[in-house]
Amino acid sequence: MRINSLKGTNDYLPEVQQLRDYLQSVILRTYQNNGYERIATPIIEDIENLDNSDGGENLKLIFKVMKRGDKLAKALEAGQFDDLADIGLRYDLTLPLCRFYSANRDKLAKPFKVIQMGDVFRAEQPQKGRLRQFVQCDIDVIGSDNPSIEIECINVMGKALMNIGIKNFKMKINDRRVLNAMLLSAGFPKDELMSVCISFDKLDKIGVDGVIGELSEKGFDEATLTKFRGLIEGGEITLEKAREFCEDKTYAENLQYIIDTCNDLAEGKYETVFDMSLVRGQGYYTGTIFEVESLDFGSSIAGGGRYDNLVGKFIGEDIPACGFSIGFERICAILMDNGFEIPGKPKRFAVIYEENQTAEAIRYADSKRGEYDVTLVSKPNKLGKLFGKLESQGYAGCYVVGDEADKWF
Amino acid sequence: MRINSLKGTNDYLPEVQQLRDYLQSVILRTYQNNGYERIATPIIEDIENLDNSDGGENLKLIFKVMKRGDKLAKALEAGQFDDLADIGLRYDLTLPLCRFYSANRDKLAKPFKVIQMGDVFRAEQPQKGRLRQFVQCDIDVIGSDNPSIEIECINVMGKALMNIGIKNFKMKINDRRVLNAMLLSAGFPKDELMSVCISFDKLDKIGVDGVIGELSEKGFDEATLTKFRGLIEGGEITLEKAREFCEDKTYAENLQYIIDTCNDLAEGKYETVFDMSLVRGQGYYTGTIFEVESLDFGSSIAGGGRYDNLVGKFIGEDIPACGFSIGFERICAILMDNGFEIPGKPKRFAVIYEENQTAEAIRYADSKRGEYDVTLVSKPNKLGKLFGKLESQGYAGCYVVGDEADKWF
Repeated sequence: MRINSLKGTNDYLPEVQQLRDYLQSVILRTYQNNGYERIATPIIEDIENLDNSDGGENLKLIFKVMKRGDKLAKALEAGQFDDLADIGLRYDLTLPLCRFYSANRDKLAKPFKVIQMGDVFRAEQPQKGRLRQFVQCDIDVIGSDNPSIEIECINVMGKALMNIGIKNFKMKINDRRVLNAMLLSAGFPKDELMSVCISFDKLDKIGVDGVIGELSEKGFDEATLTKFRGLIEGGEITLEKAREFCEDKTYAENLQYIIDTCNDLAEGKYETVFDMSLVRGQGYYTGTIFEVESLDFGSSIAGGGRYDNLVGKFIGEDIPACGFSIGFERICAILMDNGFEIPGKPKRFAVIYEENQTAEAIRYADSKRGEYDVTLVSKPNKLGKLFGKLESQGYAGCYVVGDEADKWF
Repeated sequence: MRINSLKGTNDYLPEVQQLRDYLQSVILRTYQNNGYERIATPIIEDIENLDNSDGGENLKLIFKVMKRGDKLAKALEAGQFDDLADIGLRYDLTLPLCRFYSANRDKLAKPFKVIQMGDVFRAEQPQKGRLRQFVQCDIDVIGSDNPSIEIECINVMGKALMNIGIKNFKMKINDRRVLNAMLLSAGFPKDELMSVCISFDKLDKIGVDGVIGELSEKGFDEATLTKFRGLIEGGEITLEKAREFCEDKTYAENLQYIIDTCNDLAEGKYETVFDMSLVRGQGYYTGTIFEVESLDFGSSIAGGGRYDNLVGKFIGEDIPACGFSIGFERICAILMDNGFEIPGKPKRFAVIYEENQTAEAIRYADSKRGEYDVTLVSKPNKLGKLFGKLESQGYAGCYVVGDEADKWF
């Protein structure tokens, strides 16, 4: 039998798991303190829901669960090799949320301010250093199209990040409709914008040449690509300049209002800025999109945006929605690399016993459990060595059953 | 697209999820307070590990994840229909724990006292009212064969159940070796005991006739079955009587020691009793087995036992191990049916605003967030109706931006 976890997945040892639990509890508490409520959806979803979900590149990364029993036998017999799976593992928390909202909307607050924290799965090539199972910590607001929702989401995300000890970050914001106006002005056809966005999203990873190359392979004409190269190579595009691409100026004005209000509320603790090159990979975004960049580590640590049409795929009626998701694994990695210490960790105490003293040991341990987390440890031959080990592991003290007093380190 | 969650799975609405989070946090805190440390393993496991894991009937219920890309194409082309999956969803937390221990044992305390809380998956027939995704909350101790470990596990489980408000339960205990001695005395062949146990485990569900019928179908002879029927029909088998079946009296004496010590420590809050008909389905149990029965609801709410050979399947060296797992879903259902109220629920406050007052609303909300969880609510036409709704939802009060004072319910 294999003793290692599957490639792209991790076993979490006690110290790391304690950090993960701590961070998740602080994030959850921050979200709740700001008026959001937690729900949960299953890890397994109907494969057709996932396949039809506008998930962009993620659709290629779905883990598929095989049918069982007769259904599998029938599909195999009929040679229907595209129809062997009936279930998939969720690749994000947004699609399941939209299904959840569609099924339960009569019972939910309007707008519905919701927290989700859980595992998602993507069959990434592990050499990229990406995980195949990872945690997302999302807030979403379903049922309002007002930009006050974007402001609130950004504000809450900022608080959550600061509460877990992330300093020195920047909120980047864009709007798919402004982005689309820019792409249309370059000459891309309207019904190909999604495909263009998926390539443009890779700008950070593959550079201008990479993006143009990929778009060229997708068959876009030279003139458009030359114009587009001019736009994205020509230095920063300000919101003022981006506004010029837009026929309807509302979207740019919205962005300005969101940016100004967020910066006012943040009181200099972090900045919210317009970023024309921000795309976000998911196909389902329809308006504002955001991303948090850690300035210390130069990487994206959270992202989100408005997806006003995704609920509509379930119920045939568009419901405005907006969400923001923490890249939990990235943040854990950053904090661990920087020797993060959990504040207010419970103190530990050990009760050392011989195995015929079990009842006495448990009784003594219980008397200490109001103040300490108490571990029962069986008495070794070399007591001194055990004391040293307990002290080095951060135990506050111990008691050897039968002794007169506690021993403190 | 389908709006309901897959059959056998649940969406959890805010109120239910809040209860689930509360219960899990109390269970986790109790386990930690008793000196156990939490780890986590992935939900996806190598399919061969799962298939070879002595999981008894659960092996038939594994959700299998299809291979991807070339590997899938090759297997399909070659008609290797038994080899289409390379991954499975874990069906319990014990097998992954043994793999984890095997991979990481140099870094772990000896014995290793460990907590696991997470989702497991079984492709049950949903008409049984069983879930296909459900939570388990386990403690395990790996690396000691002393019965003080059984005593500690039972003691900690008792505390966890009492801390979440479960009263009136009974710990049932047996030992697979005593059970085996009884089955051998009936005449079952030694190498068929596992198969006999799997059928005997269904006694509660299918009765004596059902068990005898299933064993008959498995081909056991009439004489053995008649003798066995006499044993299990003949009224309660006491530990004293069970002892007579055993050549080696140690196991029965061990049980007596565990039972006496647990009852001493429980101080009458619950009872630990010997139960000859306790089997536990998993094939991997090797010694003591336990189960908690809710006396109010007549159902099993936790179970576990000793599995001294499972780690050995990974590293070729047997390591003693013992675990106890809470049937979290059963307990949630029981508590919800009985109108359980979460103690110390955070108080809620609402700030009611018009959408051009966002910054002011967030600032006022923040000033209240030390004491309350504060929700921003956009101002409706009928303010009175909103007040009534907030009050009925348990809000302590609210503030309408622009008003002079808070409004309290």
